[in-house]
Amino acid sequence: MNPPAPVPAPTCLSINQQTVRQWSLPQLVAGCRAAGVTAVGLWREPVREYGPAAAARLVREAGLTVSSLCRGGFFTASEPAERRAALADNRAAIDEAAALGTGTLALVSGGLPPGSRDLAGARRRVADALAELAPYAAERGVRLAIEPLHPMYAADRCVVSTLAQALDLAEGFPAEQVGVVVDSYHLWWDDTLPEQLARAGRAGRIAACQLADWVTPLPEGVLLGRGRLGDGSIDLRGFREQVTAAGYRGPIEVEIFNPALWARDGTEVLAEVIERYRAHVLTPTPHD
Amino acid sequence: MNPPAPVPAPTCLSINQQTVRQWSLPQLVAGCRAAGVTAVGLWREPVREYGPAAAARLVREAGLTVSSLCRGGFFTASEPAERRAALADNRAAIDEAAALGTGTLALVSGGLPPGSRDLAGARRRVADALAELAPYAAERGVRLAIEPLHPMYAADRCVVSTLAQALDLAEGFPAEQVGVVVDSYHLWWDDTLPEQLARAGRAGRIAACQLADWVTPLPEGVLLGRGRLGDGSIDLRGFREQVTAAGYRGPIEVEIFNPALWARDGTEVLAEVIERYRAHVLTPTPHD
Repeated sequence: MNPPAPVPAPTCLSINQQTVRQWSLPQLVAGCRAAGVTAVGLWREPVREYGPAAAARLVREAGLTVSSLCRGGFFTASEPAERRAALADNRAAIDEAAALGTGTLALVSGGLPPGSRDLAGARRRVADALAELAPYAAERGVRLAIEPLHPMYAADRCVVSTLAQALDLAEGFPAEQVGVVVDSYHLWWDDTLPEQLARAGRAGRIAACQLADWVTPLPEGVLLGRGRLGDGSIDLRGFREQVTAAGYRGPIEVEIFNPALWARDGTEVLAEVIERYRAHVLTPTPHD
Repeated sequence: MNPPAPVPAPTCLSINQQTVRQWSLPQLVAGCRAAGVTAVGLWREPVREYGPAAAARLVREAGLTVSSLCRGGFFTASEPAERRAALADNRAAIDEAAALGTGTLALVSGGLPPGSRDLAGARRRVADALAELAPYAAERGVRLAIEPLHPMYAADRCVVSTLAQALDLAEGFPAEQVGVVVDSYHLWWDDTLPEQLARAGRAGRIAACQLADWVTPLPEGVLLGRGRLGDGSIDLRGFREQVTAAGYRGPIEVEIFNPALWARDGTEVLAEVIERYRAHVLTPTPHD
């Protein structure tokens, strides 16, 4: 007797590399292919380690697409030399995204420079950097995707803290050059989220969508406490439905930073992610 | 030779009891009196332990005023029995505030009920509870002061996460019945803060102002990581100036939850708070 044929993963699902960080890039590609996952979100460090051209070939030959590259950004340095270095690094990130064939470079804008309390100034430098980089990216077929991060990261990681703020920034540029990333973990708490998602959709600004759940208590440093889909406080199905209602039809990345997942077998984690994605994100249809 | 006469503490300064939690209520009152501090923010638990009437007498006889009582709230239970208990407890908090002679009861609205993902529903229950309690409070000369807490507390502590949201809620009621607490720690990251502080001031809604600084990394649970004034990322002077420009003339409470302060001598902590308040919050004048 043959084992039952595996149900292919939903075609809208993309697996962000951080979710199964224990896997090498070839393991990720092979694992996703075996599970029927058709898209992956990649990170710069492992891509550079493997070589962007080789990574692009590996992914393409497995029939996968790259939903986004994480991440450019860190635009807030005030020192001229640091600022030039950040811009150069972002041009390299754009080149890597183009090499991978992804149209989306996610941007984590950066926090306050050490000792600074000038949040408005840091935010202005983000806008300035976008103006320098957007044409370079557009020429290479890459859209810059501003990711608002949860306000608990405003000091040390990202001074763009809400979807409204990200859209205000993006709207200084053509929609095909600068969009936004909407990530449930960062945005779920915001009472203006429904109207801002609709605004983002109307303006064609949603470049990527990511999911993780919110679980408490938060760990020290608040970086590695993202929850598995269904374990936390977020109405993930509602979030996804709003993103869809806003007109977004692209891949939905599951991006969970969580050491408990990294300590497990990658194949088992991936199967669980797919199962939880079906249970907590997809909308049941009469045919299910 | 006599020691130099101590410089009296700024008259706008109030010390929230949590900042020197190692002190009993009598120690707090004696310590503030000795340092020339003229107002204190009190918490319900130590007040009830001492007895509200006795606490009121103790504070009054020392020439101090009570800038606020912390805290009512926790309005989000969906179970009818829990909900009734929460409302009864809030009526008791209002009575205690009235007994202490403070016009301000700070409200921490509560998080999601266990297992719930219905953030909008929890927020509606906050509005419903305000409607039940505001007249009771007003009859006793107490104003309910909605405190927006940092969005990192939305799941487990307070579903009111921004000043705009708190004002939207407050505006369902007369300004003398329902106001807001503006706390630098919770609000500093918000790019709409200047316009929302101005809005709050115009509408006469600022019932209390609290200060703590933002320091990273956040500790596990993110509750006890508030920074001493000047140690973190917040432009506290700018925050206070905006609150003043909005028309607020009431006391400014320093409220720092930080075990490192609680482990030290209370008199030394209080002297340091006053010194840092002068250095980081007050605006220097030509006569200083």
